[in-house]
Amino acid sequence: MGTTEQANRDAYAASREVLIFDTTLRDGEQSPGISLNTAEKLEIAHQLARLGVDVIEAGFPITSPGDFEAVQAIAREVTEPAPPIVAGLARTHVADIDAAWEAVRDAERPRIHTFISTSDIHIVHQLQSTREDVKGQARAAVAHAKQYLDDVEFSPMDATRSDVEFTAEVCQIAIDEGATTINIPDTVGYAMPHEFQAFLARLYELVPDLHGVTLSVHCHDDLGLAVANSFAGVLAGARQVECAINGIGERAGNASLEEIVMLLRTRHADIGLDTRVNTTELARSSRLVSRLTGYPVQPNKAIVGRNAFAHESGIHQDGVLKERTTYEIMDATTVGLQANSIVLGKHSGRHALRQALEEMGFHVEGQALNTAFRRFKEIADKKKALTAMDLEALVTDELREEISGFGLESFDVESSSERPPHARVSVTLPDGGTAEGSFTGDGPIDAVFAAIDAATGLQAKLRDFQIGAVTEGQDALGEVSVVVEVGGQSGSGQAVATDIIEAAARAYVRALSVAQTRSQRSDQSVGLPATAP
Amino acid sequence: MGTTEQANRDAYAASREVLIFDTTLRDGEQSPGISLNTAEKLEIAHQLARLGVDVIEAGFPITSPGDFEAVQAIAREVTEPAPPIVAGLARTHVADIDAAWEAVRDAERPRIHTFISTSDIHIVHQLQSTREDVKGQARAAVAHAKQYLDDVEFSPMDATRSDVEFTAEVCQIAIDEGATTINIPDTVGYAMPHEFQAFLARLYELVPDLHGVTLSVHCHDDLGLAVANSFAGVLAGARQVECAINGIGERAGNASLEEIVMLLRTRHADIGLDTRVNTTELARSSRLVSRLTGYPVQPNKAIVGRNAFAHESGIHQDGVLKERTTYEIMDATTVGLQANSIVLGKHSGRHALRQALEEMGFHVEGQALNTAFRRFKEIADKKKALTAMDLEALVTDELREEISGFGLESFDVESSSERPPHARVSVTLPDGGTAEGSFTGDGPIDAVFAAIDAATGLQAKLRDFQIGAVTEGQDALGEVSVVVEVGGQSGSGQAVATDIIEAAARAYVRALSVAQTRSQRSDQSVGLPATAP
Repeated sequence: MGTTEQANRDAYAASREVLIFDTTLRDGEQSPGISLNTAEKLEIAHQLARLGVDVIEAGFPITSPGDFEAVQAIAREVTEPAPPIVAGLARTHVADIDAAWEAVRDAERPRIHTFISTSDIHIVHQLQSTREDVKGQARAAVAHAKQYLDDVEFSPMDATRSDVEFTAEVCQIAIDEGATTINIPDTVGYAMPHEFQAFLARLYELVPDLHGVTLSVHCHDDLGLAVANSFAGVLAGARQVECAINGIGERAGNASLEEIVMLLRTRHADIGLDTRVNTTELARSSRLVSRLTGYPVQPNKAIVGRNAFAHESGIHQDGVLKERTTYEIMDATTVGLQANSIVLGKHSGRHALRQALEEMGFHVEGQALNTAFRRFKEIADKKKALTAMDLEALVTDELREEISGFGLESFDVESSSERPPHARVSVTLPDGGTAEGSFTGDGPIDAVFAAIDAATGLQAKLRDFQIGAVTEGQDALGEVSVVVEVGGQSGSGQAVATDIIEAAARAYVRALSVAQTRSQRSDQSVGLPATAP
Repeated sequence: MGTTEQANRDAYAASREVLIFDTTLRDGEQSPGISLNTAEKLEIAHQLARLGVDVIEAGFPITSPGDFEAVQAIAREVTEPAPPIVAGLARTHVADIDAAWEAVRDAERPRIHTFISTSDIHIVHQLQSTREDVKGQARAAVAHAKQYLDDVEFSPMDATRSDVEFTAEVCQIAIDEGATTINIPDTVGYAMPHEFQAFLARLYELVPDLHGVTLSVHCHDDLGLAVANSFAGVLAGARQVECAINGIGERAGNASLEEIVMLLRTRHADIGLDTRVNTTELARSSRLVSRLTGYPVQPNKAIVGRNAFAHESGIHQDGVLKERTTYEIMDATTVGLQANSIVLGKHSGRHALRQALEEMGFHVEGQALNTAFRRFKEIADKKKALTAMDLEALVTDELREEISGFGLESFDVESSSERPPHARVSVTLPDGGTAEGSFTGDGPIDAVFAAIDAATGLQAKLRDFQIGAVTEGQDALGEVSVVVEVGGQSGSGQAVATDIIEAAARAYVRALSVAQTRSQRSDQSVGLPATAP
């Protein structure tokens, strides 16, 4: 085969591949009540790399020192099994682009993603600017970013509500300045698939140079069409889809990564397009993101919901038994929902635990292994068999960055139909001391939270509280996720235990520690607002 | 204006209206773990009527006496504010159609919905039949149903994986026999919007008589495209959409009613189509269904998720303040998410409660009002202000059909870091006596459930357990939903209390009562399998 022929084949193959740009850590993290620390973001980023996404949008570095630090850590540390592109978001301001560059520069494959609105409604009401000014800003921003690196993405924000001719002009400017990806966002989730497809087709007509760059789409789910619009974009020629695990993001969220990936995979024979994603990591990615963000996944969520592959009705079960394809278009094992093969019990040793964790992709050594093993033994004493799902929850729970702050030393709670619930707690303080608190509340969890407030002396406001079960059955591990606000700063904490009150108390103490730490260093924050295309 | 002109205008207006066929109580109720009793189904049906859906598919009468009873009760009792069409599902068998007719005949506007698969994969593997036989069965079924009533719907199940020519033949037969609605199901959620639209366009070509009946679509969300496919169907000419509240249903569920309704409403100016739905009842319908089914709605769910209308990021909030439409394409009040206007406290009297409930659409009188008032006072003692959301939860919780069975008399639970959680309960028995039980478990809720098992002497298996908060803040009402299995029969129970352990105990006792009752009468069940197009 000649080299030209080979090159043509490569080009064809490349054009058949849709890049997955994951924005869980940027648009997803902007969801109300979600606030991930650097260690949690790193954990998600490592999982995204295992999942095989092409681009990780790690954050919006200018918005806070915490965001900057997380993007930088991901750029430096997430390289296995293959280094993903790590993108930092930036408005068109010089300071934004400089911060994004500083944050991503250590990545093997850095990207700067800059954006500005092209819709008149945004230009007039939000930017209080003019179309001419927007063109100038887009030009300057891409040119500035190109001084630092080659991989520059540009987004005309609110494109779907913009004049297509003006959007085309701005895209042409970005391409002229060297943008390598042009991303068309449906920022407010307003587009209809046929309309979005027509918009992109018109852009291709107006900007023939679009054929020389990667066209990307970024869709929101306000009308339930994020995946359909993204797919319409792909049919129109887009070869990058911006999406998030579990479809989290502003308001109703972004396109669900797992849905767009499984749609392209399942209908590959008909569409001829696919992604590089390792779909067997989808279920685990979904669980991890749900656990760390405290955002539950509804049972009827496509692909990753608890019931996505379940069949209740008699005939269906009958049909499935006779021939799987009668009612199943996907195999549960392809998304990583295979039966748990790992089962450990109270007699399992440190070596078995380490091996099981290795199999799951967690490299746990030294002190971290000791901590994990001690916790494993505690749980194994109460629960007969620990599955991979249980271990995953434990590891996620325990191997997080140590938060210096408060700790739960002991607790005692009484709940009865005869008298109001009463709680007594002992909490370790950041200075090494301990403090006690007690409270009689309306419910045992309420009482335990108030007793912790009393012990720490903090006035905390409970912003969110979620309880779930990790696994099924009577001895399931309970999982609690809490978001609190202290002095205007929010903090989240999660914990896992067989005792739901213990889990709640531990999660609350962690959330307090995070919020308190943030509130103490909030003076350092530049306090710039975040945004989302 | 002449009568012909008027008739033409009426016909035009009608063709601009999309009928909403709600299958929450049929396809939705087939979701794993959901098992609604007749009172709960009635409550949902009343809410669907308030919401203004055109058709309520109330169940699948042949499958069990319970299903039959619920469909009959809905047919008889749900007439306000306007009588909806009440549909019963039936396979093509004579017995199915007879049962469906008996169940719906008392409705002001009854419908029979009959179906048979047209895909070869279903015909061969599930029906173990032939195409000829399918044609004969479809013909006979529609003809038989037409003997009873005029409004007959026919569905060629798994249509999207069927040969379009054969599907057309079967649809033509159904129309020839008098079917007034032809529904095209994407049973396994496999279709892509452009493909589904092309399939329907081809059907119209092959069956010109389709123009004389209502074309309907029924889409599943396995690839995240249920709403987009339904919408593609509407663009192709469908004037009925089958959907469910919160998108519940088999596997990943059906098209979300709230999404398709708000899509048509929001893009009405561009599409020229709309529904009769009173959108301000959407949020409440979603909460009711979530509460009674125990299926949570994820925060990032479009339209009805907690964050669907929330804005976290700074620029967005800024934009929203400057001009609402910068980031909002819908107003939260249009879906019924307006601020709670009703606030009652411990000093509110029976009259205020009754008036508040009336405003919310609940007609509560006599003993039911006494019960509600007593419970209201209990809660108001613990919680400063009760909002409409709280009242809604209380009423849903309390005004349900009394289940004869077990009752929770008292409980006492201790949870501590020093010793294993211990629970002691006293339970009233169906025979009027009481029994005590105690248990030391892994967690306080686990212990309380086991103590209840000990008191009742039942061996129950916990199949599902959900905890949520009704409203926000430290004194929020906790809501617990439990599904248990006793002797092969499942039962669900919900309860609301400020104490989460109390709510869990009450929900568990209710679930046990339901499961026990079913298990005792399961010999009467015909035990036919359910199914879903």
